[in-house]
Amino acid sequence: MGLKTIETPSLVLNRAALLRNTGRMTERFRQLGVAFRPHMKTAKSIDVARLALAGNFGGITVSTLKEAEYFAEHGINDITYAVSIVPQRLPRLARLIGRGVAVSVITDSVEIAREISNRAVELGIVLDVLIELDSGEKRAGLLPESEELLVLGRLLDELPGTRLKGVLTHAGNSYQGGSLDGIQAIAEHERWCAATAATRLRATGLACPVVSVGSTPTAVHGRDFTGITEVRAGVYMFGDVFQWEIGSHGLEDITVSVLATVTAHRPELNTALIDAGSLALSKDRSTGAPGLPEDVGFGLVMNETATHRIGRVRVGRVYQEHGMLEADGPFPFEQLPVGSRVRVLPNHVCMTAAMYEEYQVVDGAADEAMETWPRINGW
Amino acid sequence: MGLKTIETPSLVLNRAALLRNTGRMTERFRQLGVAFRPHMKTAKSIDVARLALAGNFGGITVSTLKEAEYFAEHGINDITYAVSIVPQRLPRLARLIGRGVAVSVITDSVEIAREISNRAVELGIVLDVLIELDSGEKRAGLLPESEELLVLGRLLDELPGTRLKGVLTHAGNSYQGGSLDGIQAIAEHERWCAATAATRLRATGLACPVVSVGSTPTAVHGRDFTGITEVRAGVYMFGDVFQWEIGSHGLEDITVSVLATVTAHRPELNTALIDAGSLALSKDRSTGAPGLPEDVGFGLVMNETATHRIGRVRVGRVYQEHGMLEADGPFPFEQLPVGSRVRVLPNHVCMTAAMYEEYQVVDGAADEAMETWPRINGW
Repeated sequence: MGLKTIETPSLVLNRAALLRNTGRMTERFRQLGVAFRPHMKTAKSIDVARLALAGNFGGITVSTLKEAEYFAEHGINDITYAVSIVPQRLPRLARLIGRGVAVSVITDSVEIAREISNRAVELGIVLDVLIELDSGEKRAGLLPESEELLVLGRLLDELPGTRLKGVLTHAGNSYQGGSLDGIQAIAEHERWCAATAATRLRATGLACPVVSVGSTPTAVHGRDFTGITEVRAGVYMFGDVFQWEIGSHGLEDITVSVLATVTAHRPELNTALIDAGSLALSKDRSTGAPGLPEDVGFGLVMNETATHRIGRVRVGRVYQEHGMLEADGPFPFEQLPVGSRVRVLPNHVCMTAAMYEEYQVVDGAADEAMETWPRINGW
Repeated sequence: MGLKTIETPSLVLNRAALLRNTGRMTERFRQLGVAFRPHMKTAKSIDVARLALAGNFGGITVSTLKEAEYFAEHGINDITYAVSIVPQRLPRLARLIGRGVAVSVITDSVEIAREISNRAVELGIVLDVLIELDSGEKRAGLLPESEELLVLGRLLDELPGTRLKGVLTHAGNSYQGGSLDGIQAIAEHERWCAATAATRLRATGLACPVVSVGSTPTAVHGRDFTGITEVRAGVYMFGDVFQWEIGSHGLEDITVSVLATVTAHRPELNTALIDAGSLALSKDRSTGAPGLPEDVGFGLVMNETATHRIGRVRVGRVYQEHGMLEADGPFPFEQLPVGSRVRVLPNHVCMTAAMYEEYQVVDGAADEAMETWPRINGW
C-alpha cells in the first residue's frame, strides 16, 4: 500500500520524525533526572503513546475523559487529567478508578473541591487532586503566593473524598514568548511558581509529592527544573508551524502533515486549488507576527514526500473543502500540475489532527504507507 | 433523559427551530417554482436531511464522497457532489452509480474532463458532469462569457465517459455582501452568470438541463431566479452567528449550540471559564466588522435553555479545552455560578458541528433531550 494509493485529504504521520522527537525529549529529561509525563491531547493515539512512553516511567497526561478511558483500555494506568475537574465527570472517573487506574485531577476552587469530595464519597472513591496554579497564562489556577493556595491545600487534605496530590501548572503563555530569552524567562517563572507553591504547602505540614510543570516551549528550552518532580508536554511529539516559528524544533521535525491533491489552476488569479480546506487543515492562521519567519497562511506547502518546500507556497485561503494556494511572486504551476499531490504542514497540529480518525503512517520520506494508526476525538 | 443529564460539551439541536428554517426555505422555493436541493455539508445527518427534504423533490448536494455514500445508504438517490471532481475519486463514485444512485459531479477543467472520461470508461460508467462557473467568488469555475465554457461543454458532450448535465455556481462571496442591497446584487450576478452560461451552451446546440445556483445569503435574499432550474443552500438549516450578522435569519433561528459548563470564576480577571474550547467550539472568530452588530469572539453566550442572552457575554478566548468568557462591563458572576450551564451559539456552524459525532436533540426551549441523531465527519 503506497502513499500514492491513499485518497486525499489524509493525515500522514512520519514515524521516523516522531521517533526523533520522542527520543530527544525522553533523553533530555532522563539526563535532567526529572520524570516526564507525555501529554496525549495532541496525538490521541495509543500507537503514538507507546513511542512517547518508551524510556519514561509510564504515566501520561490527558485533556478529556474520553482520552483517559481510551488509554486506560489500552493498558495505561497512571493518568493525570489536566483540565479543571467538574463534578458531573465523577461517575466516569469512578469507573476508571474502580478498574485500578490511578487518575489525578486538578482544581483551583474550594467550591469544586467540596462538591467533588461529596460526589466521591457517594461513589465510594477518594480522588487524587493537584492544585492548579496560574504561572502567567492568566487562564485557570491560583497564584503561588496566594492565601487561597493554603486554604485549598488544607481542605483537599481534610475532605473525606479527596487527597492532596500536589501542584500543577502550564505556562501556555510560552507560546507567545517571542524569543529564546523570553521563553526561558517564562520557563523559569513556571518552575518558580510550582516550586514556591509546593514549599509553602509543605511548610504548613502538608504533603505535596507531585510538582508538575510543562508546555512544549518551556520543556524544550527550560534550563533549571529544581524543585520539580515531573514535566508534561505534548505538541513536541508532532511539532507544527507555530512551534517551528517560535523555535521549538526544526521544519524537518514536523511529523504530521495533510496529503492533498491539486484540483485546479487559476492562472488569471495566480493561484491553484487543493482538496484540503478548513475541515482538512483546520483554521488556525499563521500571523507572520514581527520576528517570526513568515506568514504561511493556513499551512506550509511541501512536495508529496515532504522532503522540500515548493517555492514559498502557502495555503492562503480556505473554504470548507477547498484550499487556495498562494505564492510570493509567480505561482509555480509547472511544479504543481493538476492531479499532483502536496503535503501541507499544519500551523497548529492539535486542531488539524482533531479533524481525522486515523494517521497514515510512513517512514521518513519513503513513498510508502506502512500502516494506519487510529486516533480518537470527542469527549 | 433531560438536558440536565447530558455531559458537556455537547452539541444541542433545537428541532423546533430546525423545522422553522427548513419549512421556510422549502416554502419559499415552492412559491418561486424553482427546485430546491438542500446542501448537506453542514448537517451531515440523515435525520436532518429528512426534514430538509420534506416538500422538496428529493435531491441533495454534498461536499464529500463520504457524505454521498452515507446519504445513499440511507436511501437518497439523487446527489450532486459539488466540489471539483478529481480522477482518484472515480472508483468510489462508480460503486455508488452501480447501486443506482444518480450522482452529478462538477469540473471547470478540460484536462480533468479528459481524465475522468478515461477512468469512467475503464470503470464502465458514464458520469453526469456540471460545469462549474465562477460568479464572483474567485475560487473555482469558468467565467460565463469565456470561450473555455463552450470548449468544455462540447468536450463533455462528446467524450465517451461523460455527459454534459448543465452548469453550477456558488456565490460564496455573498457571505461578505455587506448589506441587503449588496447581497441582492450578488444574488442577481449569480443568477445572471448561470443563466448566461446555459444560454450560450444551448445556442451551440448543447443540452443544458440543469442550471444550479446557491448559497444561504443569495437563496434567502435573491429576488429573481429566471433561467434557474435549481437552488442549493445548506447553512440556512442551522444558521449561525455569521449568518445572523449578515441578516440571513434572526438570533432565534440559530438551531445548533454547544452546551457547556462554567468551571471557574476569575474575578480578578473579570472572566469565567467554560469547558468548551477550540475543539468544542471550533476557531472561527467573529470579526465585528464595520456594519456588523458586534464582535462575539468565538461564540455568543445564552442561558442553558437558549431562550435569552446572558448580558453581553461572549467567548473571548479559546484554548483546546477551555473557553474564557468575557463581558462588556462587570462580569455577571451571579448569573453564571460555577457548575451552571450555558449554550454557546456558534459563529460558523459548519466548523463547529464537524467537531461532534452526534446531535442532542431538544424541542424548542424544552429542558429535555428527546433523542440523539448521529452525524458523519471525514472524507
